Amino acid sequence: MKDERPIGIFDSGVGGLTVLKVFRDRYPGENFIYFGDTARVPYGTKSEKTVVRYSMENSKFLEKFDVKLIVVACNTSSSIALDVLKREFNVPVIGVVKPGSLAAVKVTKTGNVGVIGTEATVKSGSYRKEILLRAPLLNVYEKPCPLFVPLIEEGWIEDEITMLVAKRYLSYFKDGKVDTLVLGCTHYPLLKSVIGKILEGVTLVDSAEETVKETAKVLKGNLDEVGIGKVRVFVSDLNERFEKIAEMILENRISIKEVSTE
Amino acid sequence: MKDERPIGIFDSGVGGLTVLKVFRDRYPGENFIYFGDTARVPYGTKSEKTVVRYSMENSKFLEKFDVKLIVVACNTSSSIALDVLKREFNVPVIGVVKPGSLAAVKVTKTGNVGVIGTEATVKSGSYRKEILLRAPLLNVYEKPCPLFVPLIEEGWIEDEITMLVAKRYLSYFKDGKVDTLVLGCTHYPLLKSVIGKILEGVTLVDSAEETVKETAKVLKGNLDEVGIGKVRVFVSDLNERFEKIAEMILENRISIKEVSTE
Repeated sequence: MKDERPIGIFDSGVGGLTVLKVFRDRYPGENFIYFGDTARVPYGTKSEKTVVRYSMENSKFLEKFDVKLIVVACNTSSSIALDVLKREFNVPVIGVVKPGSLAAVKVTKTGNVGVIGTEATVKSGSYRKEILLRAPLLNVYEKPCPLFVPLIEEGWIEDEITMLVAKRYLSYFKDGKVDTLVLGCTHYPLLKSVIGKILEGVTLVDSAEETVKETAKVLKGNLDEVGIGKVRVFVSDLNERFEKIAEMILENRISIKEVSTE
Repeated sequence: MKDERPIGIFDSGVGGLTVLKVFRDRYPGENFIYFGDTARVPYGTKSEKTVVRYSMENSKFLEKFDVKLIVVACNTSSSIALDVLKREFNVPVIGVVKPGSLAAVKVTKTGNVGVIGTEATVKSGSYRKEILLRAPLLNVYEKPCPLFVPLIEEGWIEDEITMLVAKRYLSYFKDGKVDTLVLGCTHYPLLKSVIGKILEGVTLVDSAEETVKETAKVLKGNLDEVGIGKVRVFVSDLNERFEKIAEMILENRISIKEVSTE
């Protein structure tokens, strides 16, 4: 029998919609509740304590909708708050770091893996830990790219300046230092083409795909691939910027509701 | 008799320290309470309702210290929340928009004034209104520069990429369109040298100076220019990034305390 309860997804803002998008494409019959904490975005430059508190509040909000599982689509939250959330909630909680790390381990041939993300994600060393747990002999190189999110939110995607910023950050990986690069922030898939041009031949790992696979595994494949499900999107601050980027990611218009979680 | 009560200053984050700096240089004998809402920064991309709520909470925090006056050092808050704050609090509340506008009106010779700021500040039209209230025949040209704050926070000040970003934003003012440019965000004075190179001959108006003058006027000059006052700095999220930039702005180390205002 189908479990009609929705899947809950939260992110610090709009980036997690890239995860919702993959879920929807794959399992259109499922119901989804998305929450974006746009009133307090970004998380990636804030302290651990604050990120944990925000993540708890977001999960409590999703819990009200009787979700069957919580996806932490934010890499910063996944890096810092996942253990606390797993302990505090009765439904399975899935982050994006473990699936992304698994994919990187499977993909790399040279054993040299790069990770890019926010300052908080890189500082937490979460990807390094998850990767080395599975493959202790790999080399992991991490680099924070704090300007990628504001550049994407400004809409400068295929852009000369974004290219220069990416070249500066990614020069850390030059000369074949890595053969695999984990896009450790849900915004970054929007820069795939720019990053791909700079790091030619490097395999880019987008955690969204792997996170959806991990969810299917945890739910024992009990996911609706054919029906017509319902998506509800909530944010803590409704603004035009969110609507514009949401449309860009989801490739169609959605109705969004503002709520308070504080 | 000297009024020993501190002056309260709040900002969405670290930028308002440029205002505190001018206050300290001018009136070292005064006591100051600074609050930076670093857990929820930035404000400039958020909605009016959210900015008003945050500004109220910040002012209530300052009120607990029995401040004699509140300075809203954040341009976004000054643009959107000042009227509400003036109504709700019993001490004088001074924003940065009116002083900045007054200065621009005094300085311009051609009558063409530019304003740069966050998206929310520009959208509010606050500078336009304040300038035209005083000089209805001036021409006001406004341009949001959302990447300036992240670039400054990344520490890319005298930088080739920052120069390119600035050139793109400021091309709006090229060919002598304006003779005066208001730096309508407390972070922007850190980019004075970059902006000055691109808009040669244009007078840059930094609201901090004018805001301090306005405060002195409201307090009838009753400010201590010679003593040794106390500065207390609070933030809603304590992180290294804040400490680094605070040191850059204040030109010395300060002790910072984390508090919750939610």
